[in-house]
Amino acid sequence: MSMLMRKLLKPQGNLILKSFSSQAKSVEVQQNDTGVTIVSMARAPVNSLNLEFLTELTTTLNEVKKQKTKGIVLTSSLPTIFSAGLDIMEMYKPDISRCTQFWTTLQDFWLTLYGLEIPIAAAINGASPAGGCLTAISCEYRVLVDGKHTIGLNETKLGIVAPKWFQDAFISTIGYRKAELALLQGTLFSAQESLSIGLVDELATDKADAIAKCEKYINSFAKIPGGGRTATKLGLRNNALTWLKNNREKDTEIFINFVKSPKVQAGLELYLQSLKKK
Amino acid sequence: MSMLMRKLLKPQGNLILKSFSSQAKSVEVQQNDTGVTIVSMARAPVNSLNLEFLTELTTTLNEVKKQKTKGIVLTSSLPTIFSAGLDIMEMYKPDISRCTQFWTTLQDFWLTLYGLEIPIAAAINGASPAGGCLTAISCEYRVLVDGKHTIGLNETKLGIVAPKWFQDAFISTIGYRKAELALLQGTLFSAQESLSIGLVDELATDKADAIAKCEKYINSFAKIPGGGRTATKLGLRNNALTWLKNNREKDTEIFINFVKSPKVQAGLELYLQSLKKK
Amino acid sequence: MSMLMRKLLKPQGNLILKSFSSQAKSVEVQQNDTGVTIVSMARAPVNSLNLEFLTELTTTLNEVKKQKTKGIVLTSSLPTIFSAGLDIMEMYKPDISRCTQFWTTLQDFWLTLYGLEIPIAAAINGASPAGGCLTAISCEYRVLVDGKHTIGLNETKLGIVAPKWFQDAFISTIGYRKAELALLQGTLFSAQESLSIGLVDELATDKADAIAKCEKYINSFAKIPGGGRTATKLGLRNNALTWLKNNREKDTEIFINFVKSPKVQAGLELYLQSLKKK
Repeated sequence: MSMLMRKLLKPQGNLILKSFSSQAKSVEVQQNDTGVTIVSMARAPVNSLNLEFLTELTTTLNEVKKQKTKGIVLTSSLPTIFSAGLDIMEMYKPDISRCTQFWTTLQDFWLTLYGLEIPIAAAINGASPAGGCLTAISCEYRVLVDGKHTIGLNETKLGIVAPKWFQDAFISTIGYRKAELALLQGTLFSAQESLSIGLVDELATDKADAIAKCEKYINSFAKIPGGGRTATKLGLRNNALTWLKNNREKDTEIFINFVKSPKVQAGLELYLQSLKKK
Repeated sequence: MSMLMRKLLKPQGNLILKSFSSQAKSVEVQQNDTGVTIVSMARAPVNSLNLEFLTELTTTLNEVKKQKTKGIVLTSSLPTIFSAGLDIMEMYKPDISRCTQFWTTLQDFWLTLYGLEIPIAAAINGASPAGGCLTAISCEYRVLVDGKHTIGLNETKLGIVAPKWFQDAFISTIGYRKAELALLQGTLFSAQESLSIGLVDELATDKADAIAKCEKYINSFAKIPGGGRTATKLGLRNNALTWLKNNREKDTEIFINFVKSPKVQAGLELYLQSLKKK
Repeated sequence: MSMLMRKLLKPQGNLILKSFSSQAKSVEVQQNDTGVTIVSMARAPVNSLNLEFLTELTTTLNEVKKQKTKGIVLTSSLPTIFSAGLDIMEMYKPDISRCTQFWTTLQDFWLTLYGLEIPIAAAINGASPAGGCLTAISCEYRVLVDGKHTIGLNETKLGIVAPKWFQDAFISTIGYRKAELALLQGTLFSAQESLSIGLVDELATDKADAIAKCEKYINSFAKIPGGGRTATKLGLRNNALTWLKNNREKDTEIFINFVKSPKVQAGLELYLQSLKKK
């Protein structure tokens, strides 16, 4: 967390814009022997999702899906974190114009990921709270490296609220009752718990094993015609995708009003103070 | 059941109104050491939900939530019954004006309970059929005392129909398929079955243990800011709450037409005869 | 499969119309000692659902429900197949007029089956892919003969798409997440898998055992008044039934456009070639 601390002490935005304009590789893409594309999140220290990183991820997904690939394995280049979720610096003392752009970019990212035509599986090789969990559950399949990593929508623990579309994707994955309880308590599930409630589909011994299992999932579609598969996926996910498409402005408005609240800013301030101390 | 029998032989309404106007303690409230409020249903013999009892319960919930409390444990003061559900005397040979008021009061009770901002858990220390089950599943968490007590929406066994909002809360708790089967058969689940299908979250050895486990649930929110928690709960339950708010009149009309039916009255008559014989 | 091959070489339609006009017993009906009606699909070789067979099944269900019966056990007269699903010959090189009639008849069949007032259970004594699986999951209860028979919505494997109402009935049975994964992969579940995910309610040692278990299910309603039971069932299934009733024309249009596509015709041609080789 020391890098996060250092980031806090730097003027916000500058670093980010620089890293974006210089096309720093925050997202690494490579195609492996079997025709599967590995998309790896590499925004140290914790793959937090800010405006530029979300833009880069969305662009990458849209480019890869046009190429000749069997599917995507989404993973992290960092050793212990899949993604820490939304970048709190986008919410703390926000510039409303940038903050609005941040949120609509998050919506774009999710609409692209959740509605991706080709197979995509998450090789979760580290912690995956909040927006990191959303990213994982928006893929088609999840393999979590067994160990101390946890995953879940823990927003209530930070005094914030997972948006309706985060919640709905979560409910679709583990069912309403388990989702309600976990959302209220902000539960971060261990690997074994995640497997037993269906939050992930398989456990893996390490990152290579997780990627191999994700590739196996993608290769399960080798003999399945893509047209019917895609129509099936988009049909199943149509309600959720359409809801956000039809409610983008209202959803953004709720978020902006939320981050403008002094109570939320005070909560974020406290949280950031606690990170600095670490 | 002999008290129920005696009640049947008394003029309906009088007893009830007296017990309400005299502020008899049908609902007992006490705050324990840990800042949790115990709300205990004490309408002998079976905590059946009539107009006055529902009014008292609703008033109690609304008053307690305004006080400084960590949350509510809802339980029963009776030794073997959590709640027997809706008071059949409100449906048998009904005065339509009172019956309409009864139903709208039930709706108010449920809207208050299901949408309660603060944590609420049910320590189910006895049988919990029909409306008793609805009451339990409308809390956030359920602990059932292990033993011979059963819980479920058994309306079809009485020849009646669980209203749509009873059904939807049930489906949210145990999933559609298990709910459909149980609703058709009017299944009353044993403690072990309830736990295995998720109708309750934990079992307890006795009432004190059930209350302790409910308190532990409520204390799990000690470090979770109330604002985000409440917004999360109301967001998740918004569809169900809004449905009833938007359909109160129609829902009442369906109920009134239902109880006016000679077939239903004949069924209730038979049921009451069977109780008298016990 | 040799009979299927022979059928392919005959002029389409003639054989079918003859078998219909001659009232060949493609559906066998018998009432057993306990007052339960056994409806047995007997359209060799694989109980594939074509226009005439669907018409006969729908008529049978409507007639049986008017008679004095406790309920229906739906099974197959064939030794290894419950139903192979929709008859591919209705989709291959289709006459659009007949094809439209085929699809609306399928809709009628499903509206009748899924909304059947009386208890109906499936004794699944053989393979049950695609439309065969839809038929089974549209009953109230499923008992599968243990062994090598599989069941599932495997449409994507044939390059086609299970319609929204197939998918919704599937989701209602096994939950969204398991349904999504199975629909994408076109999974055919083994008996043990089907039981563990709730796709079937019980396994049986043979057909007689499956029928006995279905009868037991139907007899579980012996003391449950029919009125409340039926209202409960139709209430629970109302959303799904109403959706199709309100979207019949659009649903038909989607299907017709689908079968008219050269890509789909090429896929069906390949599939039929592969059957001929067997």
